[in-house]
Amino acid sequence: MTWRQSASAGEDPEDRRAVSPINPASQSAVRPVKLLIVGGVAGGASAATRARRLSEDAEIILFEKGPDVSFANCGMPYYAGGVIDSREKLVVTTPERLRRRFAIDVRTRHEVLAIDRDSRRVRVRELETGREYEESYDRLVLAPGAVPVTPEVPGIDLPGIFTLRALEDIDHIKAGIDAGLKRAVVVGGGFIGLEFAENLVHRGVATTIVELQQQLLPPLDAEMTTPILASLVRHDVDLRLGDSAVAFEQVGQGLEVCLASGERLPAGMVVVGVGVRPLNTLAVEAGLEIGPRGGVRVDEQMRTSDPAIHAVGDVAEIREAIFGEPAQIPLAGPANRQGRIAADAVFGRESRYRGTQGTSVVGVFEVTAASTGFSEKQLRREGRHYRKVYVHPANHAGYYPGAESMTLKLLFDPQPGPRQGRILGAQAVGGHGVDKRIDVIAIAIQSGLTVYDLEETELAYAPQYGSAKDPVNMAGFVAAGLLRGDHPQADMETVLEPGFAERSQAGEAEIPLDVRTPEEFARGHLPAAINIPVEELRARLGELPRNRRVLCYCQVGYRGYLATRILLQHGFDVANLGGGYKTFRLHCPDEPAAADGRATRQAAAVGR
Amino acid sequence: MTWRQSASAGEDPEDRRAVSPINPASQSAVRPVKLLIVGGVAGGASAATRARRLSEDAEIILFEKGPDVSFANCGMPYYAGGVIDSREKLVVTTPERLRRRFAIDVRTRHEVLAIDRDSRRVRVRELETGREYEESYDRLVLAPGAVPVTPEVPGIDLPGIFTLRALEDIDHIKAGIDAGLKRAVVVGGGFIGLEFAENLVHRGVATTIVELQQQLLPPLDAEMTTPILASLVRHDVDLRLGDSAVAFEQVGQGLEVCLASGERLPAGMVVVGVGVRPLNTLAVEAGLEIGPRGGVRVDEQMRTSDPAIHAVGDVAEIREAIFGEPAQIPLAGPANRQGRIAADAVFGRESRYRGTQGTSVVGVFEVTAASTGFSEKQLRREGRHYRKVYVHPANHAGYYPGAESMTLKLLFDPQPGPRQGRILGAQAVGGHGVDKRIDVIAIAIQSGLTVYDLEETELAYAPQYGSAKDPVNMAGFVAAGLLRGDHPQADMETVLEPGFAERSQAGEAEIPLDVRTPEEFARGHLPAAINIPVEELRARLGELPRNRRVLCYCQVGYRGYLATRILLQHGFDVANLGGGYKTFRLHCPDEPAAADGRATRQAAAVGR
Repeated sequence: MTWRQSASAGEDPEDRRAVSPINPASQSAVRPVKLLIVGGVAGGASAATRARRLSEDAEIILFEKGPDVSFANCGMPYYAGGVIDSREKLVVTTPERLRRRFAIDVRTRHEVLAIDRDSRRVRVRELETGREYEESYDRLVLAPGAVPVTPEVPGIDLPGIFTLRALEDIDHIKAGIDAGLKRAVVVGGGFIGLEFAENLVHRGVATTIVELQQQLLPPLDAEMTTPILASLVRHDVDLRLGDSAVAFEQVGQGLEVCLASGERLPAGMVVVGVGVRPLNTLAVEAGLEIGPRGGVRVDEQMRTSDPAIHAVGDVAEIREAIFGEPAQIPLAGPANRQGRIAADAVFGRESRYRGTQGTSVVGVFEVTAASTGFSEKQLRREGRHYRKVYVHPANHAGYYPGAESMTLKLLFDPQPGPRQGRILGAQAVGGHGVDKRIDVIAIAIQSGLTVYDLEETELAYAPQYGSAKDPVNMAGFVAAGLLRGDHPQADMETVLEPGFAERSQAGEAEIPLDVRTPEEFARGHLPAAINIPVEELRARLGELPRNRRVLCYCQVGYRGYLATRILLQHGFDVANLGGGYKTFRLHCPDEPAAADGRATRQAAAVGR
Repeated sequence: MTWRQSASAGEDPEDRRAVSPINPASQSAVRPVKLLIVGGVAGGASAATRARRLSEDAEIILFEKGPDVSFANCGMPYYAGGVIDSREKLVVTTPERLRRRFAIDVRTRHEVLAIDRDSRRVRVRELETGREYEESYDRLVLAPGAVPVTPEVPGIDLPGIFTLRALEDIDHIKAGIDAGLKRAVVVGGGFIGLEFAENLVHRGVATTIVELQQQLLPPLDAEMTTPILASLVRHDVDLRLGDSAVAFEQVGQGLEVCLASGERLPAGMVVVGVGVRPLNTLAVEAGLEIGPRGGVRVDEQMRTSDPAIHAVGDVAEIREAIFGEPAQIPLAGPANRQGRIAADAVFGRESRYRGTQGTSVVGVFEVTAASTGFSEKQLRREGRHYRKVYVHPANHAGYYPGAESMTLKLLFDPQPGPRQGRILGAQAVGGHGVDKRIDVIAIAIQSGLTVYDLEETELAYAPQYGSAKDPVNMAGFVAAGLLRGDHPQADMETVLEPGFAERSQAGEAEIPLDVRTPEEFARGHLPAAINIPVEELRARLGELPRNRRVLCYCQVGYRGYLATRILLQHGFDVANLGGGYKTFRLHCPDEPAAADGRATRQAAAVGR
């Protein structure tokens, strides 16, 4: 048997016998498959247990460098914060259970040092004793995960500076907090950074977040992060956007974080969460093909350039599910599915990985932010055709107590053709129900649905749970109406351009028409806007110019849409300003006319 | 212009002009369309506002028999219960707003008495004055809704007996509760009955529910209602399943409800919610085609047998979305969309209604129950091919505090072919997150997805919101594994058959194998089951018979699946008992061996 043969799934008679549900007893007639797995958390543990379910007599050895397998690293910030009250709860499964229930030879504190692909052997070090030995394999699954990126700056190795990978990391952090930590700096404003900041605040620690970009949560579009930023400020989290740590220094018992801006932040502890990179050393040294972001190249069955070796989870370069381009998206759900698919492939099954959508969610205090598919900035960066809409509905019927507002942004393909309106991405931010709508749109993207399909989506409605017109329907209505030409839409960027107000007042640009009530108008409005409530519009058409484009807007977009329909049918050049005043305020929560960097404005505004 | 011409959508030049966004100003050159709408709640109000958005100069008259338009009838029980604290909140929109914002001629307290299709006129009575008049139409939209079914039994007209249709009904009910109501009987254990019972209890009223069927919530399968039944009993709601009210009598100041069983229940008030029937009088008298359940026959554009007349909402007979059969499914969301589609059709647009899935949700105390698509009993009744699986996951990561358990039942098409695994229906019951999973599966059904697709669905995961393997994925795994033959499944009905335990013990039937721990086994197990924990199974294969089928089970199905895989590969005749002991307990929460009517057993069990 050569690897080429066995690589072609289903052509390996041994493998086929191994998985045949028809005559499993015949398995023992041939030498069982020997499967080695490197890494015992999400992808590795899934591959191991799936492999056992597929083959009772395969020899399965799982190597894990650390002391634990399959622990819940997503729960670590909450353990530090005392929300999760015991360390044992983070342990999803134990080596003992994998041994007893799945007959897997689990070797924790064993590091795989090298792969000899020619002889199909790995070199292993038992970390407790230093003993080294070799183990042969028929198939190898690499699931080592990723490591936190560590900024290469002076002082990064000082005690009190932590990244998050193993349960041991969180033990140290928790011990520090328990010992009475007063002040911490979180470097990185992504998912982990925000979750940590929340938990530090929860424990009474004065916390500063330093983020290199001009916004929090870089996977989201900047304006969608405004409610999170506001929430952090409400909870007294100190923010430094567009800044970075350039050095760490020991000062007495504590640390000082030196920022690029020149500021120095005192801290009893620093938590660094600035992203992860694939732990690809083994794969690189073994000469496996590697993608530009460091991920191990795999096919749809998670097979690397060596067909005897699979790679799954954060170490693998996958494809994003929408355009099918290579991507590096570390997520637990996909890692689990990839482990499953790798095991399937080992035993000759045809399962194929469909790509990762990047569906994710984060809770920060009372705010939830979630997204799936592409963000607007990704689409722009890649030069894709797209349009966008914003809706600001409540999570359930407004007449039932406790309704919470959300903003839902939908990105879709406007190009004519059978795929017109295909959903490319969605983001939502708000209170309860945000995760539900993103999950619904995630499966819509998986199904290749269009915004026209979202109009017709039938979701469960009772006053505590939703609305007869669900936020998902609303987004579909607005997006489909835009594509049909029912309401030409101008994006908010039009009025955010520097000098727009001046040009508008000089008659040289579009004229914003605020169709809300005078009371709403008085509380704040777009620069250069005039006010005619939609109810009076039909009677006051004469007040509007016919030689300039009118940009209707209201609070969230609906009255603006009605006004747009009225004006359109009366022959005006008109567009609805997408998402209304609420969207404008997401873009610039402080001064309407301010024109400097967007996120800096955000920070200045909500930080006052 | 004749009706035939205009009925063919897009062929009516007037209509086309009316909706053209390119040159709307030309509209006024022709006589505007005159559109009459009968009924001003969900479907009617949607049709009216959509019509105005499509045509600024159409003449739109909306007749509503009651005093209110577009009120939230779904909120009525919660207003009675004081959860919604003001009546105004139930008013979604007012006649005044429809007039001012949409230039709609709203005529409340006007009853449309008859339609003269030949002359295209309706006869209208102004209820305040008794004045009658005629109004001509070009197009007519019927949206009168449905009326509560009133049992034709003696005493049904006594004061203190209420059905729910208009806001006035709830005013009377609330007044009664406010006046110190002590004891109430709710006739009907469907959505409205349960919501009312909860709110009556909330107000301190001793409440009995009388339901004709042997289960609550008849749209769901009986076993899925067990947690709701238990919740009602926990909250001291008295239940009479399989019984019905045969008469009502005035006794002193109060009422007595006489049941078919002979029991007499004293009550200060009776709320009757035993379903609705289409308010089809106008349509019947006008000779429009009517379906067997009384709904007005419509095409995909909601056009009745008279192309000048559309029908939408509860009065219309629609098609269910899965097999495309005619159905009568009164729901607010579909009514809204149908109103929109009717207006589109009036103005020459091509929108088409795709059918109703019956997606719905209800909250009863701390329990949520939701469903979409077909129930098992519907599929059985219609003789469809189906298989089913149950999973019992938590709504979010178990290690994060507050995780709540749910049961998710998935029904799918097992027939070989390209559509194998197509999802036919789903039901879920439990705590938080039930509505989310049903919404996700609702859109999966809309998309025609299969259980194989659910395996790959990528949903948002953070510990507060979900799991890396979401309940939806879990259901997909189990169902797809069943179809692939990875784990033959026996449905729970096998062991529920009368005499199964005796036959099994006599060696004449399958042998249930409980693979849980001895502690779990001791707390309760299937009749005739033997116990070998899955961890010991490989070493104890010799204890199992090779001449009888082994039915593995655990608590929820996962260990049973592992055991099934082990035994299958060792040549046993084996199946996994779908959904494990937890599913068994849903079917019979009291005595394992009990064999009388299922829901009666439920009641006896949880009512003790």
